[in-house]
Amino acid sequence: MTNHLSDISLLFHALSDPTRRSILTRLAAGPARVTELSEPTGLSLPTVMRHISVLEEAGLIASTKEGRVRSCAIVPEALAPVRSWLDEQQALWEARLDRLEAFALQAMKDGKK
Amino acid sequence: MTNHLSDISLLFHALSDPTRRSILTRLAAGPARVTELSEPTGLSLPTVMRHISVLEEAGLIASTKEGRVRSCAIVPEALAPVRSWLDEQQALWEARLDRLEAFALQAMKDGKK
Repeated sequence: MTNHLSDISLLFHALSDPTRRSILTRLAAGPARVTELSEPTGLSLPTVMRHISVLEEAGLIASTKEGRVRSCAIVPEALAPVRSWLDEQQALWEARLDRLEAFALQAMKDGKK
Repeated sequence: MTNHLSDISLLFHALSDPTRRSILTRLAAGPARVTELSEPTGLSLPTVMRHISVLEEAGLIASTKEGRVRSCAIVPEALAPVRSWLDEQQALWEARLDRLEAFALQAMKDGKK
């Protein structure tokens, strides 16, 4: 449970930065070298490397090194816990609306008696 | 565009903390006073107030004050941009899989010639 919570915290933290989200969007179109990922950001390579580390620690991307070239690829199933969390929240909210509706219907019936 | 990015960054940041997520889950069941929200966390009231401020700045909850009592309620539609972002990522990924599949089919056809 603690691990699960900690993992999803890492995921949300990784997604909270626009540069990291833009890297994910780029990688959704296919794997890329770190230098290719850094160019459009206008940031220094060390800064981009730090963003890549955060994404990798959250499990959102995987990287491989061949000689001096590091390439990154997206791990698409890594977003599943985020979607599950959203679905759980929506289910809780809808259950509450159902209870409110049932309550309102009962109040109407009682009013007619 | 910048505003949109900044809003979604605030949302992901707000969701990156387990205490803040537990507050949202509690509020999905119905509005609650700040003191009710703080009890199960085991945290001090000022700490919980800070978490509540982060949730409120992200637009995930709304609070009202009556006398000395502050109550909080969830803003369920506030999670919509998070879901949209996930859907966009999934669409990009699926478009890539479709291209890969088309490429593989073409390669098979070319191999048969």
